Amino acid sequence: MGGALFMRHGGEMSGAFLAVDWGTSNRRVYRIEDARVVATERDDRGASRVARSDYPTEIAAIRARLGDLPMLLAGMVGSTIGWRTAPYAAVPADLSTIATTLDRIDERTAIVPGVAQHGERADVMRGEEVQLLGAVAAGLVPADALLCQPGTHCKWARIERGAIVDFETAMTGEIFALLRKHSILAPELTGEIVDGPAFRAGVTEGARRELASSLFRIRARGITGAAQPDAAAFASGLLIGADAAVRIGGSPIHVLAESPLGDLYLSAITILGGQAMLIDSEAAFVAGISKLWEYAQ
Amino acid sequence: MGGALFMRHGGEMSGAFLAVDWGTSNRRVYRIEDARVVATERDDRGASRVARSDYPTEIAAIRARLGDLPMLLAGMVGSTIGWRTAPYAAVPADLSTIATTLDRIDERTAIVPGVAQHGERADVMRGEEVQLLGAVAAGLVPADALLCQPGTHCKWARIERGAIVDFETAMTGEIFALLRKHSILAPELTGEIVDGPAFRAGVTEGARRELASSLFRIRARGITGAAQPDAAAFASGLLIGADAAVRIGGSPIHVLAESPLGDLYLSAITILGGQAMLIDSEAAFVAGISKLWEYAQ
Repeated sequence: MGGALFMRHGGEMSGAFLAVDWGTSNRRVYRIEDARVVATERDDRGASRVARSDYPTEIAAIRARLGDLPMLLAGMVGSTIGWRTAPYAAVPADLSTIATTLDRIDERTAIVPGVAQHGERADVMRGEEVQLLGAVAAGLVPADALLCQPGTHCKWARIERGAIVDFETAMTGEIFALLRKHSILAPELTGEIVDGPAFRAGVTEGARRELASSLFRIRARGITGAAQPDAAAFASGLLIGADAAVRIGGSPIHVLAESPLGDLYLSAITILGGQAMLIDSEAAFVAGISKLWEYAQ
Repeated sequence: MGGALFMRHGGEMSGAFLAVDWGTSNRRVYRIEDARVVATERDDRGASRVARSDYPTEIAAIRARLGDLPMLLAGMVGSTIGWRTAPYAAVPADLSTIATTLDRIDERTAIVPGVAQHGERADVMRGEEVQLLGAVAAGLVPADALLCQPGTHCKWARIERGAIVDFETAMTGEIFALLRKHSILAPELTGEIVDGPAFRAGVTEGARRELASSLFRIRARGITGAAQPDAAAFASGLLIGADAAVRIGGSPIHVLAESPLGDLYLSAITILGGQAMLIDSEAAFVAGISKLWEYAQ
């Protein structure tokens, strides 16, 4: 194959490729030409909804819709629930090291490896690395920064000189979903989650990190008729507050997320005395995957 | 009705009654004569499995089996999922104040009220009050003590001069059950929970109270092939350690539970530098309900 991972085909536009941010539940596809998005689509064909054997068909269908171009696939497509298990790049990991470990399906299709941390602080990510390192590549965050990606499994990553050097995953979103769906509190956690007094009270209480007791108080308040802030927003605040409280130090925190989740994290970090700013996660992904594409040539 | 809540019927043995510790999933029935258990049975006809309209039939069946005697019912039978909602006695609550607020179904049948704490630290219990105060009545714990009742909703109660003055409920057992049944960790949390190195490592880690991240590390260790302590025992240790860590102060902790759960709490408290002892929870219940029966005459 020589040095280039993707062979040029006759008639292909130089620098044009398709990128897929393939999550567990959803996926987002981009047609990128010279680091600019010229077409995009989003659907719910996440890795949890695509059978292993259906990936060739899915890939062909994407090419039929968005162009018969080389493809870079990031995220859960490379996990045990995806097409095939791609390797992990070990920390410290930057975009150039990740580009050298692309998992090539064929000469025009490759999966981006995840990033792993080994030993005592074992941790893994798949897909987030493109956004995290892309944020630096795009100049949206400095080359030394603390980044946060809220979600089902919230990632907190420290970047030094443009490389992920340390990260930690918190099951914040998943625990909230479990409580909302299956716990004794489920009937009380139906409200909308907005950044109001209930959420803020939850954040402050959550910073005490006595989650199991703070949560039961939601039920006890209901039973005893005590003044009850909106329970869903309060519970969300509890979990985000507990998660954020241990991250706040000297560094400002760059939150990679869309609204409204990103705004809730911003608010929680600010309430707890930290400094936070919201970063465009889509722009970060596009910058990261474009840089990987460039390195892979 | 005069002062006596239970009228004597011709031929009834003085001091003989039936007591039911009616939990959510299980119930335990005792025939008690002069504060001694002379017959007992245990089954899975907890409040969650008995329809509201079926209680008279259940009560008649218990009397047919264990004797046609007055009955005192404690626990979830008096909750919204039980026969009918009995009131709560407010803290500070001792056995004599609880005896004055029995919820009388008829002249031979009464429900023991729960105990509630109002305001900022709102909390509720139903059934646990009989064990807690019974432990004091039986001389199993001093009249000023810190008590712990592990379970789905773990109770931590401070008793002063034989009265519950302050308590807090932690959803420790419920959160563990949610993780085991519904979370991404479920496939890894199938092992038996024993007080071994994995449980102890969990307790120490749990005391840091970064639950959402400590839990994800179980998955990350599995994926990266890091040395993995038994995951179920480790996770149990995490939750119990996080719960116990904030309770340890000057007072020894009296744990009201059966093995093996009681032993796990004992171990966790000891690892975290506290002093703990296991109290016979059944003896405590019998002493508490007998004292209530005596007060109700």
